[in-house]
Amino acid sequence: MSSIFSKIVAGEIPCHKVAEDDRHLAFLDINPVAEGHTLVIPKKEVDYIFNLEEDDYAALMKFTRKVAAGLEEAIPCKRIGVAVIGLEVPHTHVHLVPISTEGDLSFTKPKLKLSHEELGKIAAKIAAKIN
Amino acid sequence: MSSIFSKIVAGEIPCHKVAEDDRHLAFLDINPVAEGHTLVIPKKEVDYIFNLEEDDYAALMKFTRKVAAGLEEAIPCKRIGVAVIGLEVPHTHVHLVPISTEGDLSFTKPKLKLSHEELGKIAAKIAAKIN
Repeated sequence: MSSIFSKIVAGEIPCHKVAEDDRHLAFLDINPVAEGHTLVIPKKEVDYIFNLEEDDYAALMKFTRKVAAGLEEAIPCKRIGVAVIGLEVPHTHVHLVPISTEGDLSFTKPKLKLSHEELGKIAAKIAAKIN
Repeated sequence: MSSIFSKIVAGEIPCHKVAEDDRHLAFLDINPVAEGHTLVIPKKEVDYIFNLEEDDYAALMKFTRKVAAGLEEAIPCKRIGVAVIGLEVPHTHVHLVPISTEGDLSFTKPKLKLSHEELGKIAAKIAAKIN
């Protein structure tokens, strides 16, 4: 069965896209730990980041850097934090989170509640800094 | 002034090393969130990971993958989690943390207390799987 992220890649489930290329997609986390919380994924469905082929891993990291640069421009923060956990969805995803304190990169704290419309505005703001 | 990590690179401060090459060093975090919690750094002192030159960033990510593979073999866990926060020490460092649940990659929970001797044994076990 396809992962929820493969369904997003296939367009079967909508997302708030911020960037895309042939091999990657970046879109907002719908349960963000901070405004602008973005997921960067390879379109190819591989569960564990360190099981990606070396070239696919390198390409994902390069694309992640590009997304992070735009995100940092779009969202007020000290820097962009990075996390890869991946125990919930079996499809590699890099969390990029605008942070200002250590605690901002916490996945156990209550998530922000943002409407579909708010997420859409944030995604557009970030996308404008990447493209 | 040199960062504490530059002092480790220079050998002025000791560390529990797990891997090293010309441009990178990996050593145990002395305040680990989990057994085997490792820091991977470029020897060059650059505060923010996304300010590294593209080639330096790519090389760091490649070295990180190698360390993660050995770490996963050495320490019982579901996978290796990755985090880059970097608000405390102004020298890029990638946290690699053996995890079995989402909450294992949390920097706000109480740290493990491991003796110098215990850390030394863990570092040797990891290093043996990398070299």
